[in-house]
Amino acid sequence: MATIGFIGVGNMGGPMAMNLVKAGHCVIAYDLSDALLDIVAEAGAEKASVASDVVVGADVIVSMLPSGKIMENLYIHETALLDIIDQNTLVIDCSTVAPENSRNLAVAAEAKGIVAIDAPVSGGVGGAVAGTLTFIVGGSDTAFENAKPVLSDMGKNVFHAGGNGAGQAAKICNNMLLAIQMIGTAEALQLGVDNGLDPKVLSEIMLQSSGKNWSLELYNPYPGVMDGVPASNEYKGGFQVNLMNKDLGLAMEVALHSKSATPMGNLAKSLYGMHGRKGSGALDFSSIQNMFKEE
Amino acid sequence: MATIGFIGVGNMGGPMAMNLVKAGHCVIAYDLSDALLDIVAEAGAEKASVASDVVVGADVIVSMLPSGKIMENLYIHETALLDIIDQNTLVIDCSTVAPENSRNLAVAAEAKGIVAIDAPVSGGVGGAVAGTLTFIVGGSDTAFENAKPVLSDMGKNVFHAGGNGAGQAAKICNNMLLAIQMIGTAEALQLGVDNGLDPKVLSEIMLQSSGKNWSLELYNPYPGVMDGVPASNEYKGGFQVNLMNKDLGLAMEVALHSKSATPMGNLAKSLYGMHGRKGSGALDFSSIQNMFKEE
Amino acid sequence: MATIGFIGVGNMGGPMAMNLVKAGHCVIAYDLSDALLDIVAEAGAEKASVASDVVVGADVIVSMLPSGKIMENLYIHETALLDIIDQNTLVIDCSTVAPENSRNLAVAAEAKGIVAIDAPVSGGVGGAVAGTLTFIVGGSDTAFENAKPVLSDMGKNVFHAGGNGAGQAAKICNNMLLAIQMIGTAEALQLGVDNGLDPKVLSEIMLQSSGKNWSLELYNPYPGVMDGVPASNEYKGGFQVNLMNKDLGLAMEVALHSKSATPMGNLAKSLYGMHGRKGSGALDFSSIQNMFKEE
Amino acid sequence: MATIGFIGVGNMGGPMAMNLVKAGHCVIAYDLSDALLDIVAEAGAEKASVASDVVVGADVIVSMLPSGKIMENLYIHETALLDIIDQNTLVIDCSTVAPENSRNLAVAAEAKGIVAIDAPVSGGVGGAVAGTLTFIVGGSDTAFENAKPVLSDMGKNVFHAGGNGAGQAAKICNNMLLAIQMIGTAEALQLGVDNGLDPKVLSEIMLQSSGKNWSLELYNPYPGVMDGVPASNEYKGGFQVNLMNKDLGLAMEVALHSKSATPMGNLAKSLYGMHGRKGSGALDFSSIQNMFKEE
Repeated sequence: MATIGFIGVGNMGGPMAMNLVKAGHCVIAYDLSDALLDIVAEAGAEKASVASDVVVGADVIVSMLPSGKIMENLYIHETALLDIIDQNTLVIDCSTVAPENSRNLAVAAEAKGIVAIDAPVSGGVGGAVAGTLTFIVGGSDTAFENAKPVLSDMGKNVFHAGGNGAGQAAKICNNMLLAIQMIGTAEALQLGVDNGLDPKVLSEIMLQSSGKNWSLELYNPYPGVMDGVPASNEYKGGFQVNLMNKDLGLAMEVALHSKSATPMGNLAKSLYGMHGRKGSGALDFSSIQNMFKEE
Repeated sequence: MATIGFIGVGNMGGPMAMNLVKAGHCVIAYDLSDALLDIVAEAGAEKASVASDVVVGADVIVSMLPSGKIMENLYIHETALLDIIDQNTLVIDCSTVAPENSRNLAVAAEAKGIVAIDAPVSGGVGGAVAGTLTFIVGGSDTAFENAKPVLSDMGKNVFHAGGNGAGQAAKICNNMLLAIQMIGTAEALQLGVDNGLDPKVLSEIMLQSSGKNWSLELYNPYPGVMDGVPASNEYKGGFQVNLMNKDLGLAMEVALHSKSATPMGNLAKSLYGMHGRKGSGALDFSSIQNMFKEE
Repeated sequence: MATIGFIGVGNMGGPMAMNLVKAGHCVIAYDLSDALLDIVAEAGAEKASVASDVVVGADVIVSMLPSGKIMENLYIHETALLDIIDQNTLVIDCSTVAPENSRNLAVAAEAKGIVAIDAPVSGGVGGAVAGTLTFIVGGSDTAFENAKPVLSDMGKNVFHAGGNGAGQAAKICNNMLLAIQMIGTAEALQLGVDNGLDPKVLSEIMLQSSGKNWSLELYNPYPGVMDGVPASNEYKGGFQVNLMNKDLGLAMEVALHSKSATPMGNLAKSLYGMHGRKGSGALDFSSIQNMFKEE
Repeated sequence: MATIGFIGVGNMGGPMAMNLVKAGHCVIAYDLSDALLDIVAEAGAEKASVASDVVVGADVIVSMLPSGKIMENLYIHETALLDIIDQNTLVIDCSTVAPENSRNLAVAAEAKGIVAIDAPVSGGVGGAVAGTLTFIVGGSDTAFENAKPVLSDMGKNVFHAGGNGAGQAAKICNNMLLAIQMIGTAEALQLGVDNGLDPKVLSEIMLQSSGKNWSLELYNPYPGVMDGVPASNEYKGGFQVNLMNKDLGLAMEVALHSKSATPMGNLAKSLYGMHGRKGSGALDFSSIQNMFKEE
C-alpha cells in the first residue's frame, strides 16, 4: 500500500480520497476548506494544514482542482510544489483542464526529474462515491502502468489516451460529443412529441436503430421516459449545466488552438450557454430538453 | 401465403419483393422501368404492365416510391388506385415521405373502406437484400398486427410507432438524430486527431464512455479505424449523402409544420447540404468527415 | 383613376386600401370579417358581400392574404376567381407566399388570358398606414409598368425583381438576411455590454464601421439606445416574431426546394422558433435581444 | 511635432509609420525584420537596432504586433519595455489582441506611472496606406484626447469606446457582426441566384430595404456585382480569411470569458474555420461566397 498525498477533496475529490483510504492506502489530504478536510479525516485520512505537508514523502500525489490556472499555480508558480516533490513521486492530476495546462505541468515536472500525468475523470459524483469512475490518462506507457493500480482503487475503467495532455484532449472530445448528442436527442424527442409520438415509444425505436446513443440508453432527457435519471427528478442532481459549459469552453479553446472546425460543438456551446444564462446552470445537463418545449 | 401487389422495385423495392417471393408469397410487381421488372420476374415475381393490374385481387399491396407527391398521385389523385382496390386489401406504403402524405393516404383510403399504413424502412440496400430491414409502422393496432407477418418476411425488426403518419415521424426523428451524431462524431474525431490523438484509441475510449453512439459502434466515419465500413472504402456504398439530405429535408418540413425548434437538425441540414453541393452527393453520409479535414 | 377590387383588408390590407381611396381610386373591398370591411367603408371604400363582386369590372385587383394556400384557393381552386375575372384586369397579389404559389397563380391566370403579378411588401403596419411601403414585384416588364402607378399610391419604393415569383424570392432573401443581421446585432451588443461597453457607444462605433446594417441604423434592438423603436417600448408594435417565423419558414422551404445551403438562415429560424415558443411570438422581432440577456 | 517610437512595421505598421513621417513627426522604428525597417527608413524614419532604442526619449510609442502574447512579452515580461519607458510617454498599442491583454498592459504601465491605451484599427492595408484607418480607443478621457492628434495623422475616424480594453472589445464585436453579415449576405445572394434572381438586382433591392448592410453597400461578395472589390478580382487582396479567423477567435475567447452566448458568431467561426482549412486562408473574407456555390 502506498502513501498518497491528496489535494482537493470537494464533491469529486472527497469520495475519491475516501475510496483510496478504503483500499488500504495511507492518505494525507489537503484542501482550502477545513470543513471538507474534516469529512475525509473522519473517513480515515490524515489532515494536512498546508499543501507542502501533503507532498513530501508521498509515493503518489493525486490532485483534483477546479481550473488549469489553480493547478499550474499550485505545482509550478505560486505554491510551486514541484520544488519540493521527491523525484520518485508520481504526480497524477485528475483535474479537468486544457491539454496545454497538463503539458505545462509535465514539462515543468520533467525539468525537476519528476513524472506527472493527466488523468481527468468521467462518471460524476455518483461514480466518485461508488468507485466506478472512468479515468482517461495522458502520459508515458510506464507512468500509465504505475498509475493504473491507484486509479483502479477509485474507478472501474482506466484508459490510456496517449502522451501528456492526451487524457484531457480525449475527455474534451468525448464531452463535446456527449453535449451534441444530448441536445440532438432532446430535439428529436420534442419533434416526435410535437408530431404526436409517445416519447417512450420513440426512445425505444431510436435506441434499437441508428439513432442509438448513450443518452437514449442511460440518461433519457425527456421527463417520465426513464426512472432514476435527472429528467424524472426535475433535473436535479447529475452533471450540472455549469460543468458542461466549462467542458465545452475547454473544447472551444482547444479547437481554436488547433484551428479545428467544430460547428456542432460550437452550437452546443451556444445553446448550453444560453440555457445557463437563463437560470438553469445548477440543473442537470439533460434539462436542455426544456429549451425545446412550448411555453 | 398471400397474394401481394408490389409497386416500385428499384434499389430497395426490388430485393424486398424478391424476399417476399422467397418466403412463398405470390408477388405481382409493377414499376415504370421494364428493366427493373425483368429482374424481379427472373426471381419469380409476376410482371404487370399497368399499376391497376397489381392491386386488383391482392391481399396486400406494398409500395416503395421516391416521393410523397408520386405516392399521393398513385393512390389518390392521378392513377387513383384507391378507386379500384378491394376493401379487404391491406395497403402498406414503405416509401419515406412526410407524415402528412401518409395521413392523406390513410384518410383517403378510409373514405373508401380500405386500411392503409405507413411502414418506412431503415437498413439500406444491404438490409433490403439480406432481409434484415427495420420497419417503423404508423397505423392502428389491428393493421399493425396484420402487416407484421408480411413485413417480417422482409425485415428483422418491426416497430409500431403509433397511428397513421407515426411511422414516418419516428423515422424522420431517428434519421435527424443519426445525422447530428454522425457529424458530431466526425467533429470530435477530427478535433482529437488535430490534437495528437490516435482516432482508433479515441474511438475506443468514447465508445466506452458517454460519447457512445451507433456511428462509433458500427459505422466509424474516420478512415482506417474500422473495417468493412464506407470510411475504409473511400466512402463508397452505404447511405448516400443525397438520401440523408432528403430525410433531413423531411425533418425540416415536419419541424416547420409543428413549429418545433431543431437547431442541431437545422445545422446538420446545412452541413449535409453544403457537402452534397460540393460533389459528394453520391458518397456515403459518413464522408461528412471530409468537411473537417485540413487540405 | 381606376376601379380597384381589394381582397383582404386586415392590419396591412386595410390601410393600403384606404390609401388607394385617398389617391382617388374607386375601391371595392372584400374580407371575411365584416368589422374590417366597415373600417375601410368608413374611409370611402365600397363594401362587397362576396369576393366575386369585387373582381367583376375591376381594372385592377389587389389581394393581401395570410398564406399561399388561401391565395391559391381564392384565385385557382375553391373560389376560383380566375374563372370570372376579365382578361384586361391586372391581378396584383401582395401576399407574402412561396414563389411557387405566385408562379402557380401566374400560370393559371395566363391560361385564361389574365396577367397576374406578385408584389409582396415590406415596411410593416407603419409603412402601410403612412403609404411608405416597399413593393417587390415579380412579373413581366409590361405588367410591372402597369402596376407601378397603383403600387406607388400605397408605397414609396417599387422594385422589379424579375419574372413571376421573383418578388417573393427577393423578399424572402431580404427578410432572411434581416433576421440574421438582427440576431447578429443583438449578440454583438450583448457581448459588448457583457464586457463593459455602453450599448449606445458601441452602436455608434459599429454604425460607422463595417458592422453597419439597417437594424443598427433604424431599429436598434437594445433597450434605451434609440428612441421610437420597439426596443424602447418593451418590444411592442413593429414586426412580430410570429411573422418573422413565417418568412423564415418560407426561406427554409425555398432553400430546400433549390437545394441551397443557408446555415445562418437555418440558425436564425431555430432561434426565432425557440423565441416564439417561449411566449414571445407577439413581440417585435428585435426582442430576440432578450435571448442573450442574463437572468 | 512629436518624437514617436514605432514598433512593428509590417503590412499595417509600415504604412502607418510612413504617414506619421509625412505628417512631420520624428519617427524611430523597430522591427525584427531588417528588410521591413529599410522600407520605412527610405520613407524618412530612423532605424533602431533594438526595441529599447525606440522607447527612450519618445513622446509617444505606437506598436502594431501580431498577438497578445508578443505584445505582453514586449512591454511587460521578456523585453519589459515598461521598465525603461519615461513616465510622460504615451503608449498606444494598435495591435488587435484580447481586451484582457490590453488591460494587463494598462495595469502594468500604471504601476510604473505610465499611461497606455489600446487603439486597434479597422480599414485594412488599403486604409493604412491611404491614412484613412478607423481607430477604436480604450483608455481614459485624457489619454484619448492626447492620443487623438497622433491617431488622426494615420486615420480618418477615431472613436473612444471606453476604458482600457474597450477598444479591443468594440473592435471584436464589430468584426464578429461583420463576419455574420458577410456570410448572411453570401447565403442570401446564393439563395436568390438559385431561385432565378439576378444577383445585381437582388443586391440593389436589399440595399434599399431592411437587408441593407456594409457588405452589400461597399463590399459585395458575389462576383461581378460590384467593381473594384475582391469578389470581382478572384477574391485577391482585401481582408484575409486568416485574419477574420483570428478576430473571430478573439470573439470566441472574450465570449467564453464573459459567459456570453453568441450562436451566430460561433457559427461564423465554424464556417470561416472550415473555409480556411480548405485552402482559402489567404483569400479575401468575402470568398465565403464560394462555400455556398454548387460544384
